[in-house]
Amino acid sequence: MNTIGKLYTLTSFGESHGEAMGGIVDGCPAGYILSPEEVQRELDRRRPGQSDLTTARAEQDRVEFLSGIFEGKSTGMPIGFIVRNQDQRSRDYEALKEVYRPSHADYTVEAKYGIRDYRGGGRSSAREHVARVVAGAIAKQVLRTRGISIQAYTSRIGSVEVNKPYTELELNRIDESVVRCPDERIAREMETLIREVKADGDSVGGVVSCVIRGLPAGVGEPVFDRFQARLGYYMMGINAAKGFEYGEGFHAAAMRGSEHNDVFVTENGQIKPLTNHAGGILGGITSGADVYFRVAFKPVATIGKEQQTVNRSGEEIRFSAHGRHDPCVVPRAVPVVESMAAMVVLDMLLEAGRF
Amino acid sequence: MNTIGKLYTLTSFGESHGEAMGGIVDGCPAGYILSPEEVQRELDRRRPGQSDLTTARAEQDRVEFLSGIFEGKSTGMPIGFIVRNQDQRSRDYEALKEVYRPSHADYTVEAKYGIRDYRGGGRSSAREHVARVVAGAIAKQVLRTRGISIQAYTSRIGSVEVNKPYTELELNRIDESVVRCPDERIAREMETLIREVKADGDSVGGVVSCVIRGLPAGVGEPVFDRFQARLGYYMMGINAAKGFEYGEGFHAAAMRGSEHNDVFVTENGQIKPLTNHAGGILGGITSGADVYFRVAFKPVATIGKEQQTVNRSGEEIRFSAHGRHDPCVVPRAVPVVESMAAMVVLDMLLEAGRF
Amino acid sequence: MNTIGKLYTLTSFGESHGEAMGGIVDGCPAGYILSPEEVQRELDRRRPGQSDLTTARAEQDRVEFLSGIFEGKSTGMPIGFIVRNQDQRSRDYEALKEVYRPSHADYTVEAKYGIRDYRGGGRSSAREHVARVVAGAIAKQVLRTRGISIQAYTSRIGSVEVNKPYTELELNRIDESVVRCPDERIAREMETLIREVKADGDSVGGVVSCVIRGLPAGVGEPVFDRFQARLGYYMMGINAAKGFEYGEGFHAAAMRGSEHNDVFVTENGQIKPLTNHAGGILGGITSGADVYFRVAFKPVATIGKEQQTVNRSGEEIRFSAHGRHDPCVVPRAVPVVESMAAMVVLDMLLEAGRF
Amino acid sequence: MNTIGKLYTLTSFGESHGEAMGGIVDGCPAGYILSPEEVQRELDRRRPGQSDLTTARAEQDRVEFLSGIFEGKSTGMPIGFIVRNQDQRSRDYEALKEVYRPSHADYTVEAKYGIRDYRGGGRSSAREHVARVVAGAIAKQVLRTRGISIQAYTSRIGSVEVNKPYTELELNRIDESVVRCPDERIAREMETLIREVKADGDSVGGVVSCVIRGLPAGVGEPVFDRFQARLGYYMMGINAAKGFEYGEGFHAAAMRGSEHNDVFVTENGQIKPLTNHAGGILGGITSGADVYFRVAFKPVATIGKEQQTVNRSGEEIRFSAHGRHDPCVVPRAVPVVESMAAMVVLDMLLEAGRF
Repeated sequence: MNTIGKLYTLTSFGESHGEAMGGIVDGCPAGYILSPEEVQRELDRRRPGQSDLTTARAEQDRVEFLSGIFEGKSTGMPIGFIVRNQDQRSRDYEALKEVYRPSHADYTVEAKYGIRDYRGGGRSSAREHVARVVAGAIAKQVLRTRGISIQAYTSRIGSVEVNKPYTELELNRIDESVVRCPDERIAREMETLIREVKADGDSVGGVVSCVIRGLPAGVGEPVFDRFQARLGYYMMGINAAKGFEYGEGFHAAAMRGSEHNDVFVTENGQIKPLTNHAGGILGGITSGADVYFRVAFKPVATIGKEQQTVNRSGEEIRFSAHGRHDPCVVPRAVPVVESMAAMVVLDMLLEAGRF
Repeated sequence: MNTIGKLYTLTSFGESHGEAMGGIVDGCPAGYILSPEEVQRELDRRRPGQSDLTTARAEQDRVEFLSGIFEGKSTGMPIGFIVRNQDQRSRDYEALKEVYRPSHADYTVEAKYGIRDYRGGGRSSAREHVARVVAGAIAKQVLRTRGISIQAYTSRIGSVEVNKPYTELELNRIDESVVRCPDERIAREMETLIREVKADGDSVGGVVSCVIRGLPAGVGEPVFDRFQARLGYYMMGINAAKGFEYGEGFHAAAMRGSEHNDVFVTENGQIKPLTNHAGGILGGITSGADVYFRVAFKPVATIGKEQQTVNRSGEEIRFSAHGRHDPCVVPRAVPVVESMAAMVVLDMLLEAGRF
Repeated sequence: MNTIGKLYTLTSFGESHGEAMGGIVDGCPAGYILSPEEVQRELDRRRPGQSDLTTARAEQDRVEFLSGIFEGKSTGMPIGFIVRNQDQRSRDYEALKEVYRPSHADYTVEAKYGIRDYRGGGRSSAREHVARVVAGAIAKQVLRTRGISIQAYTSRIGSVEVNKPYTELELNRIDESVVRCPDERIAREMETLIREVKADGDSVGGVVSCVIRGLPAGVGEPVFDRFQARLGYYMMGINAAKGFEYGEGFHAAAMRGSEHNDVFVTENGQIKPLTNHAGGILGGITSGADVYFRVAFKPVATIGKEQQTVNRSGEEIRFSAHGRHDPCVVPRAVPVVESMAAMVVLDMLLEAGRF
Repeated sequence: MNTIGKLYTLTSFGESHGEAMGGIVDGCPAGYILSPEEVQRELDRRRPGQSDLTTARAEQDRVEFLSGIFEGKSTGMPIGFIVRNQDQRSRDYEALKEVYRPSHADYTVEAKYGIRDYRGGGRSSAREHVARVVAGAIAKQVLRTRGISIQAYTSRIGSVEVNKPYTELELNRIDESVVRCPDERIAREMETLIREVKADGDSVGGVVSCVIRGLPAGVGEPVFDRFQARLGYYMMGINAAKGFEYGEGFHAAAMRGSEHNDVFVTENGQIKPLTNHAGGILGGITSGADVYFRVAFKPVATIGKEQQTVNRSGEEIRFSAHGRHDPCVVPRAVPVVESMAAMVVLDMLLEAGRF
């Protein structure tokens, strides 16, 4: 199904080369000022054609709101929106009608549905993320009124990696870099790497890190619907995501309890963990400390090099992509990670009765 | 809420030191032979006191089925079950009434609910996993009739790690080792490490790897409810889990597309990927190749060493655990990971109309 | 929340005088031929201005599909659609900004949300039904391929009532009458009554009857999610609905078991109930006999006569409606009842694994 | 599925002649005093063998709580409970193994599941209602702290009917009558009628009326999940229910708008409808006035008279019931209606953020 969330939900629709992408945001609390311009700014952060490092597909990605906002404020009613597709060079894709591209969803979608909109990945295209960015941008505006911020950045591209913890980075400067990495020196290395990969007709993976600040203690659930389980679900639902970890993550496997445990202290009358190896969540519920996590992305499957594969008849063929594509999706995935995180946070605050 | 799943669901109840753990499995297809003995065997794999490496809490964990099975078969009706708690030395825990233990859920549960059953972790105890093992053991029996198997093993404890891919391991011998590691030499190193850690009054983390074999192509969803998103959600909902990755996982971040892409071939008339970097899932839907993934676990928060913390009044205190606990939960987490995976698989097969 | 259904769902959006009504249909099985023209015909049955008996609001109600249909067939992906609002004379409604109209949702919406789009009923307007008719018209097309039909008709307006059972009526001639009553003589009486009521500046209630034919035995659930519970939920979610009954309904209260029981017989090798007092459902599950039910509608709250009420400050005022409205909604509710029934049927067939 | 509710949920299990009935109540707000004795009293109102008018099956229906209540209070964790079956004379039912009883679920359950626990109706037995009464009795205790009461009564048996509105009845005296009718004279007529019907080896239907008092304005949803839609869903999910209406119900079909509309007035600074034809709900949301509704019940399908039917092979047979049964379920349905209503109310108050 194409709905995500329990109390703050997004239902999305749209294929890469259909009429429009769009969706319905439901459960937005009533009476909040919502700026369509701010939503548009978030879409601009994700849109193709931002720099020479991204796909050349020319999409303006203009969002049109159709309901749920009245006199500048949310009414509590569903917020319908559409983003018309413009640069739909479907003829580029006619050739793909019979091909199962390597590491794409062509084969698996047909295995499930028996039919496939083959134009540019159809429903499986990462273009579906526009709906998530709209829903996330609305959530962010509501969360900001509660002093909650969500900031993601590129922390790794290929083997180029940020080595500092997020606390030592200037997260407000993320967008100053075309790769969305707040460490200037590393950002330049990343750019160089992406250009090399692009020149090679290849692609490269990476990691997005994200920090949620300002969350109160007491948000989440103790058993199945833990805060981290929700985060994991939303993040693993992003195209190309291969892994999720929070707090010390996989590194915790190598640690001792005496090292990993966070001692509680009282500061200004407020109980809080002194360190934050846990990543702001204990037993599925927030502790009031920052929640931080990382999402791993695989290299884009579409590459310029010729590859072997099969067609719908199962015959082995040689195949080269001629569509436009990104050598590395990670910088454009940054606002998507933020959006998905914002949706989780608002949903779980609602569940905790905090609105 | 305490329900997980959409079409095959578990609703669980019970506190560590209450009357009983239990649950209701709903959506089990009708007409399948279900062996209570086999469910009991899976519970025995998780139960405390299996070896000197686990907690000494003496629980027989006998499951009693109350409904939904008639003349040895599932009827399609909900399967209610209970597991009575026996060794509930609540007096051990009276001392904890006022303490917020470091890296435990004591503080966060109270922040959310304003009240807490403080006996041995209450609802937040990993003892809740017994319900999941029951639900998983039922799912496994149904899946086996379709030729689907799920096998998990300990692939890392602290810095001791299995270096071979799962394809080179004898997965049928997992239970021969007390740590549930199929690499004999590594298993012995893990045992040694856990004994050292235990002697130190400390704990240690690890990683569980898991393989799902026999899944047909076409199971999963293309957008939000991807197969990997569901796996991530279920795994991150296990106590002490800190990270999830599938296929190449975080390692994919360092790879090129030309390296990571899996070429399709036709073998005996069946289309399949030649390699399986993807981990058996493309665009959220299974490809027919093995699904494999890993879950990172933190070191247990309960350690023997004295620690600093605060009490409910926020006063800083010194505190030592006297309750019984495991130096490393990873070996007992193996059947839990398998159970959660079995629940996902059955749920998504039902969603795909395969039953 | 604005989603209805479990496996075949509609999420709707839109306010009476906003930009557009619309929605997303999710879970439509893949590979079915879907005719947009047929959807439009169903919308035309509901649209205002069909005759002098309905509101004069001039809306063409043209549906635009944005996704989920490719080369004339459903792809299994979400079907996004919009219906632009055209005749939005919002100035008619400016006067209502401060008024809580009697028996309208103005007061209760503000009590819940603290804010209200006061233009013509906003989200609470029956204009939201356009989304349901689209979703229903799609479901009907899929159901027809399985030989399942759904036919509703006006069986009562005020005290004018059809006295024959549905089996004695020509249900294929429903649309020949402007009031959608297949009994010609009664239909004329209904028309006369509605014209009288309209001339009076008043409104009148009525009943819609509905028959579902061709359903196989075995669809539904035995405990909570009974077929009739779902029908009741969907029907009571229609604007102005005040009651729901199926089979003998309220009349069953006066019957004896020996009268009401339907004897099973075998006919052409098929087991079936000989009579059908039950209305085609036993223990929440269909028996293979026709499902029939009735929905009661109240008289429209908007009337021409001057009425007393209060404004937002609680001051008592006199008030007359100047907006356009129907003297009786029942004829236009007929396609809505059919649509909601079609959605239930498809949803429950999917649940029963019949697709 | 066997779960009902969104935020306050009941998942139930159990067959009429299995080990136990039981369930899990989830979403109960934390910190409320819950009296198990009070829950038992509600079960006693539903239990068989209360008088000579009900089935002679001897069940004590003792509830055992297993979790979620600590030191007398709800903890916010799931409340597991069981009620052991005692008087399970399964041999009475062995004869029914091959019979499809008229107007019972035997045939339809097999049509759906292919298998059936034939002992006394199995899962389809009204004995499942014990779980609902437990969940309702918990909800009632929580609601009482907010001044919300729910009272149901028998308003019709066969053709014997209460003619006064609920406002003229002494609802606190409902349980003084064995048929649960607060109009003494009518109650006696009902008793007489049930005795006659019983002597005849027959059964008879009836109507339960219910009033919810103390609900604040602003609870419900404007589109699909209307307060009345939820009520309708819950009520139509009760065994033997054939119809649901609220406010004027089916009677509204015969009314004019000028008659049915409720004028708003201000009383002690509080806006409220002067009359209450609407039944306390406008546009799906409560108005602060009493919510009242009626549920129609069919005559019990099990009768003493010999009946014709078919067996599993489709052969026509003669059949007489020898199991114990009620000539009229309506008096025992009264606490079930109250329980279901209490569950709706608490669920929707939670949804409205009122806890």
